[in-house]
Amino acid sequence: MTVERAVGPMKWYGWGDPERRVRLDEEAIAMLRAEVGEGRPGDRGSLEGVVIPAPRPLPATIAETVGPAAVLTGHEHRVRRATGRGYPDLVRLRAGRLDDAPDAVVLPGNAAEVGRVLEVCARERIGVVPFGGGTSVVGGVQPVRGRFERLITLDLRRLHGTRVDRTSLTATLGPGLRGPEAEEALAAHGVTLGHFPQSFEYATIGGFAAARSAGQASSGHGRFDDLVTAVRLAAPAGELETLDVPHTAAGPALRELVLGSEGTLGIITEVSARVRAVPERRRYAAWMAPDFSSGTAIVRTMAQSDALPDVVRLSDEAETRVALGMSGTGGGKRALLGAYLGLRRRRGGCMLVCGWEGEAEAVERRRALAARILRSGGAAGLGSGPGEAWERSRYDGPYLRDELLDLGYMVETLETAHAWARLKELHDEVRAAIGAALAAQETPGIVTGHVSHAYPDGASLYFTFIAPRRPGADLEQWRTVKEAASDAIVEVGGTITHHHGIGRDHLPYMRAEVGGLGLETLRAVKERLDPAGIMNPGKLLP
Amino acid sequence: MTVERAVGPMKWYGWGDPERRVRLDEEAIAMLRAEVGEGRPGDRGSLEGVVIPAPRPLPATIAETVGPAAVLTGHEHRVRRATGRGYPDLVRLRAGRLDDAPDAVVLPGNAAEVGRVLEVCARERIGVVPFGGGTSVVGGVQPVRGRFERLITLDLRRLHGTRVDRTSLTATLGPGLRGPEAEEALAAHGVTLGHFPQSFEYATIGGFAAARSAGQASSGHGRFDDLVTAVRLAAPAGELETLDVPHTAAGPALRELVLGSEGTLGIITEVSARVRAVPERRRYAAWMAPDFSSGTAIVRTMAQSDALPDVVRLSDEAETRVALGMSGTGGGKRALLGAYLGLRRRRGGCMLVCGWEGEAEAVERRRALAARILRSGGAAGLGSGPGEAWERSRYDGPYLRDELLDLGYMVETLETAHAWARLKELHDEVRAAIGAALAAQETPGIVTGHVSHAYPDGASLYFTFIAPRRPGADLEQWRTVKEAASDAIVEVGGTITHHHGIGRDHLPYMRAEVGGLGLETLRAVKERLDPAGIMNPGKLLP
Repeated sequence: MTVERAVGPMKWYGWGDPERRVRLDEEAIAMLRAEVGEGRPGDRGSLEGVVIPAPRPLPATIAETVGPAAVLTGHEHRVRRATGRGYPDLVRLRAGRLDDAPDAVVLPGNAAEVGRVLEVCARERIGVVPFGGGTSVVGGVQPVRGRFERLITLDLRRLHGTRVDRTSLTATLGPGLRGPEAEEALAAHGVTLGHFPQSFEYATIGGFAAARSAGQASSGHGRFDDLVTAVRLAAPAGELETLDVPHTAAGPALRELVLGSEGTLGIITEVSARVRAVPERRRYAAWMAPDFSSGTAIVRTMAQSDALPDVVRLSDEAETRVALGMSGTGGGKRALLGAYLGLRRRRGGCMLVCGWEGEAEAVERRRALAARILRSGGAAGLGSGPGEAWERSRYDGPYLRDELLDLGYMVETLETAHAWARLKELHDEVRAAIGAALAAQETPGIVTGHVSHAYPDGASLYFTFIAPRRPGADLEQWRTVKEAASDAIVEVGGTITHHHGIGRDHLPYMRAEVGGLGLETLRAVKERLDPAGIMNPGKLLP
Repeated sequence: MTVERAVGPMKWYGWGDPERRVRLDEEAIAMLRAEVGEGRPGDRGSLEGVVIPAPRPLPATIAETVGPAAVLTGHEHRVRRATGRGYPDLVRLRAGRLDDAPDAVVLPGNAAEVGRVLEVCARERIGVVPFGGGTSVVGGVQPVRGRFERLITLDLRRLHGTRVDRTSLTATLGPGLRGPEAEEALAAHGVTLGHFPQSFEYATIGGFAAARSAGQASSGHGRFDDLVTAVRLAAPAGELETLDVPHTAAGPALRELVLGSEGTLGIITEVSARVRAVPERRRYAAWMAPDFSSGTAIVRTMAQSDALPDVVRLSDEAETRVALGMSGTGGGKRALLGAYLGLRRRRGGCMLVCGWEGEAEAVERRRALAARILRSGGAAGLGSGPGEAWERSRYDGPYLRDELLDLGYMVETLETAHAWARLKELHDEVRAAIGAALAAQETPGIVTGHVSHAYPDGASLYFTFIAPRRPGADLEQWRTVKEAASDAIVEVGGTITHHHGIGRDHLPYMRAEVGGLGLETLRAVKERLDPAGIMNPGKLLP
């Protein structure tokens, strides 16, 4: 894990460090063109040129609470907090026109200031959108006014405290810490959260908790809601603090109401989470399973016999094929291709990346255990090269998305989870639905899938699709596919989201997820904690 | 695990099978007398003689809903559902006078009937107490009328369905299944829940879920709320069903609101939970740590390095001493004593029982791993004899309690949990508080403690105390100690309950546990699901 720098602002129209590009090589671009046709690049304007509505004036009490320097109203500040980083966000940013932006960006300096700002906003009826890293891919930070005329975004970056309890291996962290900042602070104590989602470089502790983040490939110990031991929430109705004990039977778990609340109940001002010693050894290895069914059987066996690697990612046939042809990391690709061609002559096969972290001896013991299961499941070892290449490029996905958009391709991801008994059906139905929805728009695409989180009772499925854009109709194109995939998920009984959250994009599916009375129950909680309904309007609860 | 018989009714005045006694031997009784003085036995009457108020008439619609044979109003039925099995319950039963009893015991035959009964009760304003095994030790099934003139107990024993998904290793179980019944049904599919609390022989699946049960010594995989993947709740306002997927990020976890709700939100009509293959091998071993601090350091190291046995129980010095002198299982005791005396000449030392279950090879691998940590922590092996003796007697505790009551001794347990950094302080303060509260009443007692659930960030503490009864003032004696212990727990910041639940006894401490706004949030949930407030009046929420 490299934590080499303070995190600067993201590329305004896309993902990540403006100085960094992850290029697709010629071979990959050629493959893409051969498969789905030419891309249809659109124009991209400038940050200054992005059209947003004029800000409405806010009461002076806000600036009095946090200090005038902590209230930002400049065009750039407002544009930068007006979207997350989902595909529709990028389309809108590139098109240079956003429906709305917050009237101001407010940066409270501590939990008490958060509480006072919420009091003012509740009294004055001002909507509040919490903002961490701004990495939501489901519209979670979109400035939706709902019934409010005025709306602020509350940027939590100044809440960045760290306390470590080395005996209990827990850390209490400020919500505004970005992934690398948190890891840097923890590394000084010799510990790590071990939570590395693809958004790691920009996403924050508060966002991890509020949206139930899961590492892109962290079956071992990376799902954030499992790490959290306690939370503090500043709600308009007051402060909610859960007891920081390893477990309690004192009634329903309020912590589990705050986790996943996506800013609709209040602002998470502190998160306590389990940490562990910085791993002594880290090993990656890739394997090739004969097909997706045998691959999932292998992962299931591992999960059900306590033999899961800390990282396990099984690509389906389509993803394996694309990864071999399109990997941006030439070295890894060549290593992988060589091993692959040497081992298997027929088409098909599914790549399985495994990773282990921890004490050297434990890593070796667990590697041997997994190797036995992999072999008896019919998988062939590809050595450590491809696995390490994957690890090096684990944060590249969203950078590649910008490249593909530049080339005129739509690229989007969505995810779900289900019991093992229904996983194959879910995979096939969702893939087919995405494929059909793209073909029906005369933009046939590549649809790939993988398993990245395994549990004893089931696993997540993560889909990526790439197709030529429909310039001028990008959002319609996206919505059509999204609906088709979501309907297929609901039809098979999977969850509408394993780790992206609900935000705006999944709102129509919350009823299928939790039922009518489930929604009513969540609304009752919101009404008690946020009687004026100012918190993150239009998210989570339809 | 022996599941040899259908479970009959419990001893009316105490715990367990009326045909079974777990006797204290002469040596143990002598030791007890020497330490805390003579017991003060009281009289015990008959079931027929227990005085309860006359039942009030109920609307005919209830009998029409479930059938007249499923509405029981006889004296014995009412007495048997009028208490749980906490110490105050036993005192009241033996004294032959209960404050109240349900007007009728209603046994619905399926989830739809549960829903219809709740509708009738909500309309007619009749309180409803859900009843599974009746094993609550915190007053969870006490017939408290609150503002209702009429009250029924809903006995769920007829909801005993079982469905197993062998691929996903999950089972969907009726709430009325007692532990042995559930295990018997699962064994036919070659799987087990692996959940064996001390109440296992009588407690039910619904109760495990509603009260967040934890096995008395099941660090590995036994906490029930961790096993549950989905629940169905029949609430007066309708049905709440959570999606049965391995994980979801679709908002706050409603499942975690139902778990621990103790019947105050509705009736759990179905529980889906993870199961696993019936273990091929089961091994127990006992060790002796130099003292409680080094013992907890050993358990902490295991928990923080993924090396926890499935069962781990560390007795403090006092419990170790008492276990050596008072064990009801002579063979185990002698084996243990021999090993102990051979190994250590000085007083002190803390016994550590470890257990492993699973595939033979995994058991041996994990045993070796644990042995290394035990040895480097300064523990000495006592062999498998004492560990196996402990395993054989794991359900004996409540039988022994009846024997002690017969001899005129009060015996009670209470439990908590905290972070490792505060565990020693919590242990010392609570032990001291109990000891002082007993001494102040001129009934000095034995106070013992153990760790039975370990987590990477902390552990549970379980206390047992024995003292001569204060006949005629038993309840006052009990309450004084309970308050002193609870105040000490709150003072040090531990949870008021790791797995017994809130019920009636812990009501005064809920505010310290979840805070004022936490209580308000739970009340908002209750008001939405149970607008008339009929569900388990007077429990969980003060």
